[in-house]
Amino acid sequence: MLRIGVLGGGQLGRMLALAGVPLGVCFVFFDPIADASAGHVGELIVGKYDDRSALDRFVEAVDVVTYEFENVPTAAAEYVASRRPVWPPVGTLHIAQDRLREKQFFNALGIPTAPFAAVDSKESLRAAVTEIGAPGIVKTRVLGYDGKGQVRLASLDDVDSAWDELAGAFDGVPLIYEGFVAFERELSILSVRAQTGEIVHYPLVANVHHEGILRLSTAPAPAVDAAVQATAESYATRVLRELDYVGVLAIELFAANGTLVANEMAPRVHNSGHWTIEGAETSQFENHVRAVCGLPLGATSMVGHAAMLNLIGTIPPLPALLNVADAHVHLYGKREAPRRKVGHVTVRAASAERVQDRVAELRRLIASAVPVGEAAVSATFA
Amino acid sequence: MLRIGVLGGGQLGRMLALAGVPLGVCFVFFDPIADASAGHVGELIVGKYDDRSALDRFVEAVDVVTYEFENVPTAAAEYVASRRPVWPPVGTLHIAQDRLREKQFFNALGIPTAPFAAVDSKESLRAAVTEIGAPGIVKTRVLGYDGKGQVRLASLDDVDSAWDELAGAFDGVPLIYEGFVAFERELSILSVRAQTGEIVHYPLVANVHHEGILRLSTAPAPAVDAAVQATAESYATRVLRELDYVGVLAIELFAANGTLVANEMAPRVHNSGHWTIEGAETSQFENHVRAVCGLPLGATSMVGHAAMLNLIGTIPPLPALLNVADAHVHLYGKREAPRRKVGHVTVRAASAERVQDRVAELRRLIASAVPVGEAAVSATFA
Repeated sequence: MLRIGVLGGGQLGRMLALAGVPLGVCFVFFDPIADASAGHVGELIVGKYDDRSALDRFVEAVDVVTYEFENVPTAAAEYVASRRPVWPPVGTLHIAQDRLREKQFFNALGIPTAPFAAVDSKESLRAAVTEIGAPGIVKTRVLGYDGKGQVRLASLDDVDSAWDELAGAFDGVPLIYEGFVAFERELSILSVRAQTGEIVHYPLVANVHHEGILRLSTAPAPAVDAAVQATAESYATRVLRELDYVGVLAIELFAANGTLVANEMAPRVHNSGHWTIEGAETSQFENHVRAVCGLPLGATSMVGHAAMLNLIGTIPPLPALLNVADAHVHLYGKREAPRRKVGHVTVRAASAERVQDRVAELRRLIASAVPVGEAAVSATFA
Repeated sequence: MLRIGVLGGGQLGRMLALAGVPLGVCFVFFDPIADASAGHVGELIVGKYDDRSALDRFVEAVDVVTYEFENVPTAAAEYVASRRPVWPPVGTLHIAQDRLREKQFFNALGIPTAPFAAVDSKESLRAAVTEIGAPGIVKTRVLGYDGKGQVRLASLDDVDSAWDELAGAFDGVPLIYEGFVAFERELSILSVRAQTGEIVHYPLVANVHHEGILRLSTAPAPAVDAAVQATAESYATRVLRELDYVGVLAIELFAANGTLVANEMAPRVHNSGHWTIEGAETSQFENHVRAVCGLPLGATSMVGHAAMLNLIGTIPPLPALLNVADAHVHLYGKREAPRRKVGHVTVRAASAERVQDRVAELRRLIASAVPVGEAAVSATFA
């Protein structure tokens, strides 16, 4: 039996196992956290990423390795790759972990991005804002996620306060300044490349974020014409081929006037693809496992229409969620905590209208379940 | 986190966990076999069913208990039930484990069966065949499955040889003689009862057996009129209410001229319901977990048309299976062995015709993969 090792034991690893076990493989997870939730569906080896003896135990328990988050320390990933095949290729992490390298990489492939400049001092921030213009966002180049490590600048006057805020929290961490893109909406493309070079794409998804965290994905994204889908697929294909990539890749895109601007990529299964469990013939999780195992990819066509709502911070009463028609509930086995992704609900139905009705119903349920202190956030979202 | 204990760690337990984990519960299996395949997706406690210390460890690791096969020794089930809630109720095992009690139970509820008589000697077998007539089948009352422990009688002349065959293999085991039912096809009804008494039914499924092992289920069964579905639901409802049942129940039925005759029941998720993973809004596995956890049941409506083919004895090359359009592959993580269920493939498509085309394609693949010595079986089936 093929044993797949996963660096990281969170919900993405857990859903990889739930989709991969029926293909006759089994899973071993590596995570620093002893109660990582993927441990419910596979073996969990607990260790820090610089613990060679723990990594050795992990490597010896598996045949092939993948990862479920892109901030795996590259030293750990490279060590594992010296002993077992690792997919997606470890070189991808070097790019995806650094917003500056990522944007340079996109541009080198002819994929447009927001204007950007590297920043390592208050002076270089001022120079970047002067050159690129405001509004814009200064971000840490590394380790940012879910809206952390970012400050918006409305004008050149904000340089001092923005610098002080980020330099205080992230002293010495290199930064990037990104010009504002006037986008109408955020889309994402999920694509998969097999070991044979075969590539498949899912339909573009429309995403709604709030406070830097994905809240809602709608699939297919409404009113996407074939040319826009083709552009997104072309961008993804360039990235996949350039990296000799194997597995699922997500690219987040800003859309305006029929054009697409790449925001960032995730070299892994992605939150905006969770709808594929019920909404596509083959889920992103199964297709990632297929790719990693050297198997042929599955169809990415849709089964009806779908939307996915994240459960952030708290889980509404389970019976109420289960009683929503067309809803499919996925809990991650994690403790509730502010801003933590603890589950998601996918709606699948025959029409986009019906999906939207169900989404509205679920939003009310989710809003009413938000704990004290988070009511304002929820109200804004709902 | 609610911990569900499952007596038995085979593929049914494994699929219960794959469906139940997303509801935020986790699974502990009890099985005498150390490499039971459900152990890939939950904790596995290895012990014999009369090992009280192993049963104690199991009981202490779980909040609620179910079972995945009906031949759990009742002493073990009763012991577990003295310490934890067990669903379906343990009394069901007493009935389902004995073909005689089962048929008496059906008849008492007004559910027709084949004519039958208890047999405990060659003389009583002769008397039964004389009274009921031939052809018929003499079977062990207990522990028979997949066609084992059964002998057909074409006429009264076969009594001696049939008795010698069964008495030789099953010395002292009580038997039952069942008259032949001239049926057109075999159907099954899968029903679920919640702790609140709520009951839902899946559409009737048409099943094809070969050598006593289920090979193909088609859902919905073709050409079932509403009255036949209603009759099947009425039979299932009587059984569920009489037993104060919680969980999934399967009843196998012989169908002829618009009438239904109950053959046997299985107080668990059932092979003829595996198609529900992709083919129904809520799978039998998720609905069983919901029932056992006291949650509301999910919709049993179909998503398109579906059929399920079992993989018996051997697994065809996985890439070939995955390349069949509309096919969803489920392997059980078990070693290949003659007559062993090692996986299944579900086809889901928009029309019954398309499903049948895919089934034909899969049958050819399955037939070509049968190992030496099994070719004749496969050819008959294909």
